[in-house]
Amino acid sequence: MCEANVYLYENGKEELIMEDVDKIIPNETEVFLQNIFGQQKTIVGRIKELLLVDHRIILERTASK
Amino acid sequence: MCEANVYLYENGKEELIMEDVDKIIPNETEVFLQNIFGQQKTIVGRIKELLLVDHRIILERTASK
Repeated sequence: MCEANVYLYENGKEELIMEDVDKIIPNETEVFLQNIFGQQKTIVGRIKELLLVDHRIILERTASK
Repeated sequence: MCEANVYLYENGKEELIMEDVDKIIPNETEVFLQNIFGQQKTIVGRIKELLLVDHRIILERTASK
């Protein structure tokens, strides 16, 4: 299976947000996550980087306006 | 291996842009792609959706301002 782990990069550290993520839908201000068990989360931020072979997806907070 | 195929959604159709993509870095206006063979592309647009179990990443054009 090719799901990935999603991390939030903040203050120089990466925090694991969700494992086994299948589906990711970003919009202007948020990133919707759904894992292979159907669990869902929405994170305020943006996609920073995807490293698929490493199963890693990094999100970051967007600067508030 | 868990690389994905990247498609560009435009005019109601999906066009295959790059296969076996490992690394993806979006910025404000573009999406940088690199596949497992080291080939690189930069697409003007944004990430629309990731479906990792299906190995599918969909990009879309951003509306020009």
